[in-house]
Amino acid sequence: MKLKLALIGFGVVGQGLVEILLEEQQKLKQQYGFECQVAAVSDKLKGSAYHPDGLDMGKLLEMVKNNQSLSDYEGAETTGWDSLTTITKSNANTIVEVSWTDVQTGEPAITHVKTALAAGKHVTMTNKGPVALAAKELGELAKQNNVMLKFEGTVMAGTPAINLCLNNLAGAGITEIQGILNGTTNYILTEMENGMEYAAALQKAQELGYAEADPTGDVEGWDALAKVVILSNVVLNYHLTKDQVEREGITKITSADIAKAKEQGKRYKLIATMKLQSDGSVKGSVKPEKISLSHPLAGVSGPTNALMFRTKYVDDITIMGPGAGKAATGFALLADLIEINRATAV
Amino acid sequence: MKLKLALIGFGVVGQGLVEILLEEQQKLKQQYGFECQVAAVSDKLKGSAYHPDGLDMGKLLEMVKNNQSLSDYEGAETTGWDSLTTITKSNANTIVEVSWTDVQTGEPAITHVKTALAAGKHVTMTNKGPVALAAKELGELAKQNNVMLKFEGTVMAGTPAINLCLNNLAGAGITEIQGILNGTTNYILTEMENGMEYAAALQKAQELGYAEADPTGDVEGWDALAKVVILSNVVLNYHLTKDQVEREGITKITSADIAKAKEQGKRYKLIATMKLQSDGSVKGSVKPEKISLSHPLAGVSGPTNALMFRTKYVDDITIMGPGAGKAATGFALLADLIEINRATAV
Repeated sequence: MKLKLALIGFGVVGQGLVEILLEEQQKLKQQYGFECQVAAVSDKLKGSAYHPDGLDMGKLLEMVKNNQSLSDYEGAETTGWDSLTTITKSNANTIVEVSWTDVQTGEPAITHVKTALAAGKHVTMTNKGPVALAAKELGELAKQNNVMLKFEGTVMAGTPAINLCLNNLAGAGITEIQGILNGTTNYILTEMENGMEYAAALQKAQELGYAEADPTGDVEGWDALAKVVILSNVVLNYHLTKDQVEREGITKITSADIAKAKEQGKRYKLIATMKLQSDGSVKGSVKPEKISLSHPLAGVSGPTNALMFRTKYVDDITIMGPGAGKAATGFALLADLIEINRATAV
Repeated sequence: MKLKLALIGFGVVGQGLVEILLEEQQKLKQQYGFECQVAAVSDKLKGSAYHPDGLDMGKLLEMVKNNQSLSDYEGAETTGWDSLTTITKSNANTIVEVSWTDVQTGEPAITHVKTALAAGKHVTMTNKGPVALAAKELGELAKQNNVMLKFEGTVMAGTPAINLCLNNLAGAGITEIQGILNGTTNYILTEMENGMEYAAALQKAQELGYAEADPTGDVEGWDALAKVVILSNVVLNYHLTKDQVEREGITKITSADIAKAKEQGKRYKLIATMKLQSDGSVKGSVKPEKISLSHPLAGVSGPTNALMFRTKYVDDITIMGPGAGKAATGFALLADLIEINRATAV
């Protein structure tokens, strides 16, 4: 099956994907037998275009760069379709959900995903909200409709995480996951260890684009918490909700705390923990922890993210890599698409 | 397709696999729709048994534990088949190649694998030799016969490495791989950094079972070199041969060298490097390198292995985990089998 994509949303992440597809299409075809078209793009602010035989990827990127509305795409069969019309009426067999979405409600992404799955279309997405809030329901809907629901980019961007657990580590018997799942706070803690005060480190993180103007979601641990909920539900098969996760941010950690930890040969990290209990439930937390320098997560510095898996059969396995970025998150979508292609091509 | 296995060889690794299968069969069926039978086992020293409807895994393990020949298996349809007869005459659809094999010639494993692929049977194996010596030829034979050839366990045991590159990082644009691919030498270097002399550290490694009585393969870099050849051929698509890889072991490194590196804030590691050149060729080396403590591989201590991938789209990604061990290597076979099952079940 040749993948025919409809992108719902065309912000940084969607553009990141299309840039990679444009650059790599020859190689992807040769090496992985992967072919795809962008049949439709629908963005609330940037406009919407559709052609059943595919749109020109370079043209899409250029229009957006020049602030032209996609609804002015010349040669489109239809323009101006909203997201739900694009999902249902286009001939796309795979929906790339990268719309702007409210983290609290998961909307409009949840509705987009449900509509796509019900219409028998595969979905890949990078929005955490829908998976954190409705992983189970969406997973069942995908199963009922015999399509794939993928979301590698919701945890650690394009660094293998979700697919690593579900595919490569299937059967390894994961009993505990510890992670550094928020780059902003890890960057701040690293800078504080290098001598900066909290406020200055936060400001630098904002200047570098790691932290948003309102940094609450990062520094209070909400972002990492959403990833704990996702991993618990999807990897450890336990329906953990937001309220069940212990959460403490990094705002109370002082330079003095960090200096004292250093003296003890330790280091503060905002550690996300998911521990499988003997009854099959999962205990989840996000909180600053003083870990020893020999801990596999101790060397993870700056905005890098990491996950450590305690397993029954392969001891501890740790993966480190970027947790954000245009290309890295765009690649997460590509990784999902390649897997959809592989699974449906056989 | 229900996997029907024939194990060629029933040493530590093969037993490791069967122990996991026995323990996890219910869970594997429920969670991953994975079902398999051991239809045949053929080991040059331990005997051979076959039943088209499957042998009892617990009984196989117990017989070997009690030093009973498998050829005395009661209730087998046939006993005493040699490896090639088992591969061709049994109804197994998947061959688990874990025989004792000469690293220099890759035999008898290469012959086993060729025979299996030609007979239209999937193969998983942990022997480095056949892949290092004949990756291309075997890969083409698998393709011609429309079957899968898997070898996750040849690099870093059950820590995701080969499948990570070929599946999760497909399309990420790997441009360079650096790794710590030999646990024995990394253990020795770690102990030397902790104050031990080389000879004492080697002896301790031998006592712990990390190093063999003749440690040449490890300490002179031959083991890591074989993995460089495998990764170059399979992941970077360049046919690198053993002779093209620069190789230097750790035997010339003294405690004084290590102390001096420490003073400079550095650390000696036996680093395997595969670097993609602009003409598509790969430059490979295995040699001791002084790396800074902030290098992603600097924190990899003891017998742990690690791989760092430089990629075009996701920056640097590093995975660390065990590089050897009965369960960890047994799991590598299971990971391959689960993937064969997934790919053939759709």
